[in-house]
Amino acid sequence: MKKIINDPEHAVQDMIKGLVAAYPKQLKQITGTNVIIRKEAPVATKVGLVSGGGSGHEPAHAGYIGKGMLDAAVVGEVFTSPTPDQVLEAIKAVDSGAGVLLIIKNYTGDVMNFEMAAEMAEAEGIQVDKVIVNDDVAVENSTATTGRRGIAGTVLVHKIAGAMAEQGASLKEVKDIAEKVIAGVRSMGVATAACTVPAAGKQSFELAEDEMEIGIGIHGEPGIERKKLSSAAEIAQQLTDKILADLDFKDSEVAVMINGLGSTPEMELYIVNQTVQGILAEHEIKVSHTFVGEYMTALEMAGCSVTLLKVDKELKALLDAPSTALAFKM
Amino acid sequence: MKKIINDPEHAVQDMIKGLVAAYPKQLKQITGTNVIIRKEAPVATKVGLVSGGGSGHEPAHAGYIGKGMLDAAVVGEVFTSPTPDQVLEAIKAVDSGAGVLLIIKNYTGDVMNFEMAAEMAEAEGIQVDKVIVNDDVAVENSTATTGRRGIAGTVLVHKIAGAMAEQGASLKEVKDIAEKVIAGVRSMGVATAACTVPAAGKQSFELAEDEMEIGIGIHGEPGIERKKLSSAAEIAQQLTDKILADLDFKDSEVAVMINGLGSTPEMELYIVNQTVQGILAEHEIKVSHTFVGEYMTALEMAGCSVTLLKVDKELKALLDAPSTALAFKM
Repeated sequence: MKKIINDPEHAVQDMIKGLVAAYPKQLKQITGTNVIIRKEAPVATKVGLVSGGGSGHEPAHAGYIGKGMLDAAVVGEVFTSPTPDQVLEAIKAVDSGAGVLLIIKNYTGDVMNFEMAAEMAEAEGIQVDKVIVNDDVAVENSTATTGRRGIAGTVLVHKIAGAMAEQGASLKEVKDIAEKVIAGVRSMGVATAACTVPAAGKQSFELAEDEMEIGIGIHGEPGIERKKLSSAAEIAQQLTDKILADLDFKDSEVAVMINGLGSTPEMELYIVNQTVQGILAEHEIKVSHTFVGEYMTALEMAGCSVTLLKVDKELKALLDAPSTALAFKM
Repeated sequence: MKKIINDPEHAVQDMIKGLVAAYPKQLKQITGTNVIIRKEAPVATKVGLVSGGGSGHEPAHAGYIGKGMLDAAVVGEVFTSPTPDQVLEAIKAVDSGAGVLLIIKNYTGDVMNFEMAAEMAEAEGIQVDKVIVNDDVAVENSTATTGRRGIAGTVLVHKIAGAMAEQGASLKEVKDIAEKVIAGVRSMGVATAACTVPAAGKQSFELAEDEMEIGIGIHGEPGIERKKLSSAAEIAQQLTDKILADLDFKDSEVAVMINGLGSTPEMELYIVNQTVQGILAEHEIKVSHTFVGEYMTALEMAGCSVTLLKVDKELKALLDAPSTALAFKM
């Protein structure tokens, strides 16, 4: 796979420079770190929200920095957890005294490094708490995870916890609402082509011209089933069925996210959405919000994921709350 | 190239259904047509803005429907101009009596069909005018165009003309500001991989593993030069040099757009942006706004385009004006 980069070793540094150069009114980089923060951080009296992880998931996570979403994104190397000292820098930069919540996708490296940073911050007198997102119903454990992986549903945690924090909620209240989202959000993905980590130079797995892989992660991890490429309707059905079998969505209202993994045209995501909406209607599940686009990618992987989040009046209002984050279209 | 679709013949119809189902508060489809309009259209006393063209450029053009941008997008088949009767439906749907401006990308089919629709609308007593965007400096003529092609710079015409219309400007004033943007906007693109039209089932052109094609269009048209894949810095330099040689940007302030063509990771777009910003600084060209992302794609083509727009106080204010269009991140 061809890459429009300079030196693979500096791709993440170059990306951060290009990102902050693009949006200097909204974002700044903490000098000497891979931490990007909201320009006006720390926001007085507000709980600070920090997320992040490996690079390659853009627009996650820096694209979700802004009023009503995140205060900082810690940027690791491609598909590699950021180190604890980097996470600590982010915590220190966004703490206004009201405490900091870490929103962590469930990968062993991320959990370990964010937790270590939390301990270091607490030793410096900063109140820190964390939530771990594990929305992917495809696999119970994987090479990179104990328990379920965190994927696109994480963006809905950012949005809702971010809105709650912006309204002046306490650290406990922000954590509680994030946990409520995590309890009600489920996702699953499919790939029709793998991606290539720049420094590796070869695809993470190979699929034949007529194959797809169900249940993939967002780091080129293998999925659960390799099969013949089927129609958008069949793919949507398989993903949605697995999600609906995992959590009881009966009589629920849901927010839907159809997320592109990197190289799938928006046209195809809308075609998938059309079927998903039909399936939900058949199950008499009402849809409050739909988000279609690239929210959490895996470099140029082809494919998509479906996410459903159970919503109530409180979560719907928080989804509707204004956000200035660049990549959260609403 | 694999597609997550159902029947290729119905891909555009399925897309439209999935799009309107996703954003029912913002968009509606005119029944029995391929026209998508702003939910509240026609907006009383406001000049209506209609754009569109072939599908496959998503989020263009329906993603730019909203307050402060377009009122309607006419959706053709993939890379195929919409028919005049469809454009006429859009004109009729968005005319509030203040007239309608058509924003057309310069392709022979689009120009012919939009112009024919304008004549039909005028025969029905609707005041219609048009602008033709031709920002691509790569080729003077092509298989699909007399004169330059219209590419990503079109989105900046949508934004600025849309803001002007929203402020209550007359049809002439909206047309004049659109012409001012067109006079000052230039773009050029590169591809590292071609795209596949669903109904065709094979790539529009083939590139070897170490090749790229400079000066490509957004319909799989060939470019002007095929060469060895070079670094992001060299690519950015070549595209920007060609743009700077075409129009005198000396002592200007510019808005920059780094546009992904479909499957290029955002990481790479930011890396390109980093170099473009450096080149502009070397030329002492000041940057007012930067937009990085997928604004005008060519299905899953890999590559990007660079757009520069000369701005002054008036254009900067219009770029900053609020917009609710889903795909215009600002």
